[in-house]
Amino acid sequence: MKYRIEKDTMGEVQVPADKYWGAQTERSRNNFKIGAASSMPKEIIEGFAYLKKAAAFANTDLGVLPAEKRDAIAAVCDEILAGQLHDQFPLVIWQTGSGTQSNMNVNEVIANRAQVLKGFNIGEGEPFIKANDDVNKSQSSNDTFPTAMHIAAYKMVVETTLPGVEKLRDTLHQKATEFKNVVKIGRTHLMDATPLTLGQEISGYAAQLNYGIKALKNTLAHLSEIALGGTAVGTGLNAPEGYDVKVATYIAQFTNHPFVTAENKFEALAAHDAIVETHGALKQLAVSLNKIANDIRMLASGPRSGIGEIHIPENEPGSSIMPGKVNPTQCEALTMVCAQVIGNDVAIAVGGMQGHYELNVFKPMMAANFLQSARLLGDACVSFDEHCAQGIEPNYKRIKELVDNSLMLVTALNTKIGYYKAAEIAQTAHKNGTTLKEEAVRLGYVTSEEFDAWVKPEEMV
Amino acid sequence: MKYRIEKDTMGEVQVPADKYWGAQTERSRNNFKIGAASSMPKEIIEGFAYLKKAAAFANTDLGVLPAEKRDAIAAVCDEILAGQLHDQFPLVIWQTGSGTQSNMNVNEVIANRAQVLKGFNIGEGEPFIKANDDVNKSQSSNDTFPTAMHIAAYKMVVETTLPGVEKLRDTLHQKATEFKNVVKIGRTHLMDATPLTLGQEISGYAAQLNYGIKALKNTLAHLSEIALGGTAVGTGLNAPEGYDVKVATYIAQFTNHPFVTAENKFEALAAHDAIVETHGALKQLAVSLNKIANDIRMLASGPRSGIGEIHIPENEPGSSIMPGKVNPTQCEALTMVCAQVIGNDVAIAVGGMQGHYELNVFKPMMAANFLQSARLLGDACVSFDEHCAQGIEPNYKRIKELVDNSLMLVTALNTKIGYYKAAEIAQTAHKNGTTLKEEAVRLGYVTSEEFDAWVKPEEMV
Amino acid sequence: MKYRIEKDTMGEVQVPADKYWGAQTERSRNNFKIGAASSMPKEIIEGFAYLKKAAAFANTDLGVLPAEKRDAIAAVCDEILAGQLHDQFPLVIWQTGSGTQSNMNVNEVIANRAQVLKGFNIGEGEPFIKANDDVNKSQSSNDTFPTAMHIAAYKMVVETTLPGVEKLRDTLHQKATEFKNVVKIGRTHLMDATPLTLGQEISGYAAQLNYGIKALKNTLAHLSEIALGGTAVGTGLNAPEGYDVKVATYIAQFTNHPFVTAENKFEALAAHDAIVETHGALKQLAVSLNKIANDIRMLASGPRSGIGEIHIPENEPGSSIMPGKVNPTQCEALTMVCAQVIGNDVAIAVGGMQGHYELNVFKPMMAANFLQSARLLGDACVSFDEHCAQGIEPNYKRIKELVDNSLMLVTALNTKIGYYKAAEIAQTAHKNGTTLKEEAVRLGYVTSEEFDAWVKPEEMV
Amino acid sequence: MKYRIEKDTMGEVQVPADKYWGAQTERSRNNFKIGAASSMPKEIIEGFAYLKKAAAFANTDLGVLPAEKRDAIAAVCDEILAGQLHDQFPLVIWQTGSGTQSNMNVNEVIANRAQVLKGFNIGEGEPFIKANDDVNKSQSSNDTFPTAMHIAAYKMVVETTLPGVEKLRDTLHQKATEFKNVVKIGRTHLMDATPLTLGQEISGYAAQLNYGIKALKNTLAHLSEIALGGTAVGTGLNAPEGYDVKVATYIAQFTNHPFVTAENKFEALAAHDAIVETHGALKQLAVSLNKIANDIRMLASGPRSGIGEIHIPENEPGSSIMPGKVNPTQCEALTMVCAQVIGNDVAIAVGGMQGHYELNVFKPMMAANFLQSARLLGDACVSFDEHCAQGIEPNYKRIKELVDNSLMLVTALNTKIGYYKAAEIAQTAHKNGTTLKEEAVRLGYVTSEEFDAWVKPEEMV
Repeated sequence: MKYRIEKDTMGEVQVPADKYWGAQTERSRNNFKIGAASSMPKEIIEGFAYLKKAAAFANTDLGVLPAEKRDAIAAVCDEILAGQLHDQFPLVIWQTGSGTQSNMNVNEVIANRAQVLKGFNIGEGEPFIKANDDVNKSQSSNDTFPTAMHIAAYKMVVETTLPGVEKLRDTLHQKATEFKNVVKIGRTHLMDATPLTLGQEISGYAAQLNYGIKALKNTLAHLSEIALGGTAVGTGLNAPEGYDVKVATYIAQFTNHPFVTAENKFEALAAHDAIVETHGALKQLAVSLNKIANDIRMLASGPRSGIGEIHIPENEPGSSIMPGKVNPTQCEALTMVCAQVIGNDVAIAVGGMQGHYELNVFKPMMAANFLQSARLLGDACVSFDEHCAQGIEPNYKRIKELVDNSLMLVTALNTKIGYYKAAEIAQTAHKNGTTLKEEAVRLGYVTSEEFDAWVKPEEMV
Repeated sequence: MKYRIEKDTMGEVQVPADKYWGAQTERSRNNFKIGAASSMPKEIIEGFAYLKKAAAFANTDLGVLPAEKRDAIAAVCDEILAGQLHDQFPLVIWQTGSGTQSNMNVNEVIANRAQVLKGFNIGEGEPFIKANDDVNKSQSSNDTFPTAMHIAAYKMVVETTLPGVEKLRDTLHQKATEFKNVVKIGRTHLMDATPLTLGQEISGYAAQLNYGIKALKNTLAHLSEIALGGTAVGTGLNAPEGYDVKVATYIAQFTNHPFVTAENKFEALAAHDAIVETHGALKQLAVSLNKIANDIRMLASGPRSGIGEIHIPENEPGSSIMPGKVNPTQCEALTMVCAQVIGNDVAIAVGGMQGHYELNVFKPMMAANFLQSARLLGDACVSFDEHCAQGIEPNYKRIKELVDNSLMLVTALNTKIGYYKAAEIAQTAHKNGTTLKEEAVRLGYVTSEEFDAWVKPEEMV
Repeated sequence: MKYRIEKDTMGEVQVPADKYWGAQTERSRNNFKIGAASSMPKEIIEGFAYLKKAAAFANTDLGVLPAEKRDAIAAVCDEILAGQLHDQFPLVIWQTGSGTQSNMNVNEVIANRAQVLKGFNIGEGEPFIKANDDVNKSQSSNDTFPTAMHIAAYKMVVETTLPGVEKLRDTLHQKATEFKNVVKIGRTHLMDATPLTLGQEISGYAAQLNYGIKALKNTLAHLSEIALGGTAVGTGLNAPEGYDVKVATYIAQFTNHPFVTAENKFEALAAHDAIVETHGALKQLAVSLNKIANDIRMLASGPRSGIGEIHIPENEPGSSIMPGKVNPTQCEALTMVCAQVIGNDVAIAVGGMQGHYELNVFKPMMAANFLQSARLLGDACVSFDEHCAQGIEPNYKRIKELVDNSLMLVTALNTKIGYYKAAEIAQTAHKNGTTLKEEAVRLGYVTSEEFDAWVKPEEMV
Repeated sequence: MKYRIEKDTMGEVQVPADKYWGAQTERSRNNFKIGAASSMPKEIIEGFAYLKKAAAFANTDLGVLPAEKRDAIAAVCDEILAGQLHDQFPLVIWQTGSGTQSNMNVNEVIANRAQVLKGFNIGEGEPFIKANDDVNKSQSSNDTFPTAMHIAAYKMVVETTLPGVEKLRDTLHQKATEFKNVVKIGRTHLMDATPLTLGQEISGYAAQLNYGIKALKNTLAHLSEIALGGTAVGTGLNAPEGYDVKVATYIAQFTNHPFVTAENKFEALAAHDAIVETHGALKQLAVSLNKIANDIRMLASGPRSGIGEIHIPENEPGSSIMPGKVNPTQCEALTMVCAQVIGNDVAIAVGGMQGHYELNVFKPMMAANFLQSARLLGDACVSFDEHCAQGIEPNYKRIKELVDNSLMLVTALNTKIGYYKAAEIAQTAHKNGTTLKEEAVRLGYVTSEEFDAWVKPEEMV
């Protein structure tokens, strides 16, 4: 491989000749061989592209960067956002906890690429754009990385998570309406209970997602606040007056999302409670979705030895050894995602609780976990919706058979003959393997006519 | 010990003669010898007292319970709320996951105590009030226990957690104002960075708590919804029309908190996402408080070999072996509480994700963890506030000494001579153990006058 | 209330006149009003009693404590172990993270009680035994508290957890043998699969517990190492030569458990990885037990609309509204315990990871969580064993009905006619609601005789 | 893109013409668009390659597979292990929870590739090797996937994690020896305490890792047990007699690791407690490493306003805005890894606790989290060792300055003048900003000569 020499304040470094990155990126590559290369999420790099462009615009507006440099920086940022430089960001999550090295990676790539766009070879000529003095102007890693985190996180939640969850919620809502008269046995403690309709049961799932969506949206205001303008420790040293508000406006404009400057920059660097907060809502959704997916697979279980009250789509052969087997695979993918999100929530809490003084240094790890959770939840909801939820159909025959047999219909007699006599009827029928009606009449507590008039599953829902 | 015989639908049980509880409570006592007795939180019992009274009122209003029974039930509920029957609730958290046995414990105590208030001995005479048919009228464990959970949780958050956190937040806010001009060295990565004021640093802590308080309040609407009226599976079977709204109104009136009936009763029984949601906000506060308390103990560390930039109150001798030692014990108590809350959050998630069909059966565990977290956070904030935060004072001498020595003041030169030359100055001073000014002048990058004019810590904040 | 005046190095404190504790305990009581009083686990206090007695013996042997003082100290320790002074330990978990205040609580109670045993009133006369100089001789909180933790933790695991889990394991093992020929349908993905016997299924549970027991025992060697002798920072300052080994021997003798002195005292004070390690094994058991209890309640579900392959004991009326309902309450208690233990594991990890320098200051929190987990697991296993596992009985009729109907018996044909044709048979039978045999013969893949010869559930297990 | 038609038991599917995979892989690709493609860890695919080859050998030995087919299968397995087919495994973690689709992916690729090695184009000709009937012979996804998990997990732990941790442990051990006489101040509660040597302090870290290594090794026996031979539900249906032992022997031979057949196959399919158990030990290491890395960055903090007792290597420029700044970046990478592992532990517990009946369906998620943790810990320890630990050097000047100033040296006087007088000396010196000696003499408790004779830091360690 060919190399060129790049320099930073510590000296010279050999860098692959065909790469835009510079000395600090290369140092990080060599010093942090932890896990697979390039694990820093690409959404973070894109977040940087938005903010570097916005910073250039704000700097020019405030008179500290020539317009020509602004445009050169912006041009490379646009290339990054178009996905054209994706192989220029080789760094890993497991680097410095401030993400400084990824900030410098972006700074270096922009500076070197701008030079090439000027007609030079990489690394040749007097740099038109300097990584630290121009691309990073009015910035620090300490305010850029959290800004990139918030941009990436907000976009993922609003563009992937919420649409995915809402799509599934809508389907469940529609199923709840569709099956609102399908009377079925209820189950509490996994044991037979009084009846409800399949629509009512599913309405509970839709309600769960509704609450989850609301909770997630409640956190967005905090997440929309960005640290940019705080620079090194939150004081805004070396940034011009008015820069923080202006740069946030540009970011809002470029991303089309309502980002604003953080009220307190010290908090915005030293803590990532907004990430903790929004991920808390993602975890709540994971908790809800696990319950929903688990219920659905239990309801669909069988085909002959399970509950079998609903049918779900048969998408793939389910077994490499058992012919004809079909499994609730979408439920499984979704519940695995839920377990992951619940684990990620702990990783994020552990990172969030450990900031020291002016800087939290668990940023890349927190960002990576957040983005994974938000992406997986959105994707998994879409997958579950399209390949499972939309295809849910009642197994009417089975549903009727089970509800007709149930002993818990006896509850309807509580208000007529009292809890104790009703219990005696149920227990006797259970022991004898008979029906409630047989025992109710035999015990002399009700007449056959009364029983028929009082015990109607369809009126118990 | 003397016993009397009590009966339930399964038969006879010996119960301690002087206790108000009945057969089902006694069965649970015998069947669940897990951990210490009486571990079911008393706040849950109080939640039951509120709701049993409210249910009695609603039932009477709706014509299904005589006013005389209502008053008898209410009288015992008031005794419970006054703490007069605290030794009548011997059950543990680790019972049935619906909390049925604690519901029955309350039903039985109310029924038997009402009989005594009528002038009978316990267990004597034809019961005036029946545990199932009267006290539990229009109710199921499945809707009462979650209602008791929400009452207890809401009250704890609003009466203990929020006031505690707000008290601490106010103190921090005041300290931030008080120390807003105390210029000190900043630290990022635990390493010296550019200066900020002690007030700015503390303002970040106050901001964290502000966000946490806001996040916690965001969850209260969901928590204020109560399941009562859903009865066994959410359909409201055996409850009169209009009962759910009416009973919620009574609960709101008796507790003086804005409880409302849950929009979807199926969700309210089968899932406890409201508990998950609010506890997520408690976890966020734990994350914030851990960072704050950790910073404060590091800032106060010493007295001779630490950071020593602040003084905190000396409350107790700190060592049984090292004479004269004083420790940041309030920080330690608070961070232990934070670790507990972060763990509890996982327990709650694990419980919340596992509901089956119409009923989540991790209710008592979820409630107990929630109440512990909410109580501990509130109490610990008050303790930390009174015995630590209020007493924070700057160690002016030490603060000045450190800021004057700092190499990171060189950052102020970035915009004058560029990042690279500034770095050279800092590195040389670091290597030689000299001051920035000496090296800046010696290297010929600035004059002595320029240095003094450009590098002013108090203008860098 | 009457008070007397007690003094420590910070000055005078009013202490309730009838209590044995002194100034430092009282300061802690006042400074840490967090959660319920007296929450410091009594097992920790007992651990202290063992170690204070052992230290007194070792000190006397090594010539630094008169035999008369040794005996006075030991006498009070014996009273503590006999439970006679249980109301003398009012402190909470949420105190200093070293547990210094509970160490002093024990020191003070021993000193004052010894004075009373000498015939004085509390607080009167020249103290015969001094809290710091005698009771705490050759000790520091920093080595005593972790020693008390290990004593308490080891005892709880060996005396409560292991016997409980082993008892349940033995029952499951016996059930596995008892039902080793009961052929039933298998289920994978909650869907019907090839058959196995009920005994085989349960043997998996017994195997899980066996592995868990082995894993738990693997950790005991580390847990048996005690910090005593490290004193303040691990160097053993102020402790006589040979003291650490000797005191460990006495502790082993008094507790009847194989405690030894820790190889590296610095580790023993600064980290609590032994607690993390053993609790990791408790968490593994919680994971196993959750799976087992969940399976059992699903297998027992019904009575008419569930799986219903086994019967479990009916211990209590299951519903306050649904007469005759019986629920798998032991499964619920156990799975709640499992959720708690999984949460506690996180609290312990968060505490364990945060030691600073020579001392971990999350000791009381870690101890309390550990003891809760170990106790609950042991108790819950016994409860589950006695009130559920021992009573498991097959529902032979139901089991036979389900296995006979199963479509997955077709798997036996794979090796005869290939996976694809076997799949076609199963799918056709599923679509038509017919039996495998009907379709297998109709499709012409096997004769009726071949089918009967090849598809025998009892030969598929 | 060109496609060919592939078939499975559900019908025809279009597959990219140039890929070896077949219908079931393609179905999974289309049905599970969750997260990035190809996320199934390559170590799992390699685990499959080992086991498919071993199964072929065992099948041939037992007379159920012709040697020619064995060799064809083995040839493709060897290609996979050589990394030649890495682009043939496009599936994601978030698929069916049994990993059936990845098993089929491997089966299909082997069958189609074998056909090509025979001289055909992909998909052409009568298949020489059939995916289900040959490659998957005597297997099920349900026993192969857990076997692949154990192979991958065991190899990662033994080949990456343990060597990495041991390397770091060795360095720490060597540093402990090297600095065994460097007397420094101790710190407990972050406050000055009695002295110890730097070597002693570091020896605690080495001890932590030693315990962690031992704990990790304790789990390997369980992890070395493999499920293969259990087939669909653990009974071994359709596998020849003796197959399980034989296939394990081949796996041991091919991998060069001591794999054995699992004692209880029902446990091995239905639960993944071995993964939970070993990951528990990884979590313990994360807890330890977090403490160690955190201590080291605090000890190295400064350069002028921190603790500064040690120097660590300066690897990269630390700030994009603060010139000359160098940060403890290896500590940060390592502690981020620790937070991740602690989170992963929860994801694994949540997956492990939820098996239903004969099959745990969180396999791919559990495997992915395990492999990430094991890899990251190993890599991060190597990185930390090479770029940080090996370069640790004492800052002798600073160390001496701090120890000489310390007030806690007074502890040496406890045994001479008692705890109370010693405390008075320390408190007075603290208040007056004087030295211990000055106050000790001034208070008249010791002479100057006595002080010098009794208070010697180097004798206090």
